[in-house]
Amino acid sequence: MVKGTSSPASLEALAIGIDIGGTGTKFGIVDRVGNVLFTGEISTKKHKQVGTFIDELHENLSSLIQNVGGSGRIRGIGVGAPNGNYYTGTVEYAPNLPWKGIIPLAQLIQDKFQLPSILTNDANAAAIGEMMYGAAQGMKDFIMITLGTGVGSGIVANGHLVLGHDGFAGELGHTIIIPDGRFHEGTGKYGSLESYASATGVTLTAKEMLAKTDTESLLRQISVKDIDSKKVYDAAVQGDAVAREIFEYTGKILGMALANFVMFSSPEAIILFGGLTKSGDFILKPTREYMEANLIQVFQNRVKILVSHLRESDAAILGASALVWEMP
Amino acid sequence: MVKGTSSPASLEALAIGIDIGGTGTKFGIVDRVGNVLFTGEISTKKHKQVGTFIDELHENLSSLIQNVGGSGRIRGIGVGAPNGNYYTGTVEYAPNLPWKGIIPLAQLIQDKFQLPSILTNDANAAAIGEMMYGAAQGMKDFIMITLGTGVGSGIVANGHLVLGHDGFAGELGHTIIIPDGRFHEGTGKYGSLESYASATGVTLTAKEMLAKTDTESLLRQISVKDIDSKKVYDAAVQGDAVAREIFEYTGKILGMALANFVMFSSPEAIILFGGLTKSGDFILKPTREYMEANLIQVFQNRVKILVSHLRESDAAILGASALVWEMP
Repeated sequence: MVKGTSSPASLEALAIGIDIGGTGTKFGIVDRVGNVLFTGEISTKKHKQVGTFIDELHENLSSLIQNVGGSGRIRGIGVGAPNGNYYTGTVEYAPNLPWKGIIPLAQLIQDKFQLPSILTNDANAAAIGEMMYGAAQGMKDFIMITLGTGVGSGIVANGHLVLGHDGFAGELGHTIIIPDGRFHEGTGKYGSLESYASATGVTLTAKEMLAKTDTESLLRQISVKDIDSKKVYDAAVQGDAVAREIFEYTGKILGMALANFVMFSSPEAIILFGGLTKSGDFILKPTREYMEANLIQVFQNRVKILVSHLRESDAAILGASALVWEMP
Repeated sequence: MVKGTSSPASLEALAIGIDIGGTGTKFGIVDRVGNVLFTGEISTKKHKQVGTFIDELHENLSSLIQNVGGSGRIRGIGVGAPNGNYYTGTVEYAPNLPWKGIIPLAQLIQDKFQLPSILTNDANAAAIGEMMYGAAQGMKDFIMITLGTGVGSGIVANGHLVLGHDGFAGELGHTIIIPDGRFHEGTGKYGSLESYASATGVTLTAKEMLAKTDTESLLRQISVKDIDSKKVYDAAVQGDAVAREIFEYTGKILGMALANFVMFSSPEAIILFGGLTKSGDFILKPTREYMEANLIQVFQNRVKILVSHLRESDAAILGASALVWEMP
């Protein structure tokens, strides 16, 4: 479509999407159809105070906003954050963030940027991103699970995010899957899904398995403190039996948890996202197998496990920005 | 309101509610504000064929229908049944019913009675009953759990039943809570909530605990085959330590499961219903305690556990009949 201006895009409204993670915070400027125009990233971890975090975020985003012609084109700011509450705009008691207690993050951002701001759980934001631009297009019932440093989730039922009574629904990473199981430092709970089926969990499983047996493994060539889920994957690719068993064990637990989630909300698909999905069939095959094995008959062979095909760096930003177009 | 007829009620539309359980089937004629006018009950178990079941149901209901002046006053029939599917009107692979495979129950009833019929999961029906006439009035997010011979559930989120992609959502009794735990005869799965937190589960726990130790207990005066959850309750009331430990154990598992459900959909309340709730604080106290202990901070002390105050014999009939008023 040709318009009478030097740049047709100059008239189009844009949204800012911010994805706050425990380690880093990504942000971008996105158009209505899901093109991510400019992006950036800052450290979350280094900011002990939310005030300095907002300052650095503002500084970095300001130059991106200049790139698109100033804040007049920005409709608003959507934020995804762990333990983010859609109703109140606050982040509450997030185990993986440096700021404790209740943080009025949407308000702080709105005041600093002088732009309408809206916030939800980071995984809810990603679920909206999948529904609008990704693997869940056209679905009314699905569950999005992010397998990263932690395990996040966003649940859509009857075409709407399940936010719950108080806006905190969808904390599937913290559901207990092995009673009295592995300790989770951030929550003080035992046996949660996140303590097994995250990058952190895979690393812990690797260390446990290597300590428990003398079985030969490529992983023994690495100093124990340097083992991480990426190195376990590299070893699995080279045929290492211990590395493959680590993924088998992780998939067994994840599959069992997915079966439970299916029996809760009977989704059309479960969409997996995040670093661990890069381990492909090493983790997906046992996950599918153990999910099916734990489902009662009525659910068997009915639920797809899909891997998100959005670029990881974009999906959460896309989802957060999508909140803006839905703003009341 | 006075009308020009001998009986004002004679003009009012009524609904039939049918609650199909593994053992018995209850039914009643209900008015729009939830008065149960006439009720009856037949055996489900004795009918190996669904055809003879429908025949007996029709025979019994016909006389009730005559009581209210004939089928002209009946708007329709609502049915709650295990593994009932709202979308298709079928009952599919119900482990606790005598009829295997896929049964087109709504159609069979509609053909026999010549009245519009609608069907859903029995626990979904009870959830609607609670929302319209019971403890969940005014709530938009709650979970209803029936603790009877089995464990059923109905989930309401954003003010609507969570039915899932294919109508089978809300099978929380079959979620795995103790991996590789107790075998469930009906499903062939291990460690499901139902295998512990049902009347059947309590009976099994009692037998296991009595077999494992020599601790004195009133329950040892009963022949093992005669032990059931009611007798465990009676012993607990008399201060029997083993009986109380049985409920403590059951509550521990139920509480952990409830914590998981809360972290899924963040309900305002969990409403418990069914025979086991009659054990009162023997089971409710540990359930609350272990639910809170397994919740991450953001959910703690926010979710009520309520016991249904509807008469047990009425609630499921009420819920099933309520489906009729919502019929498209």
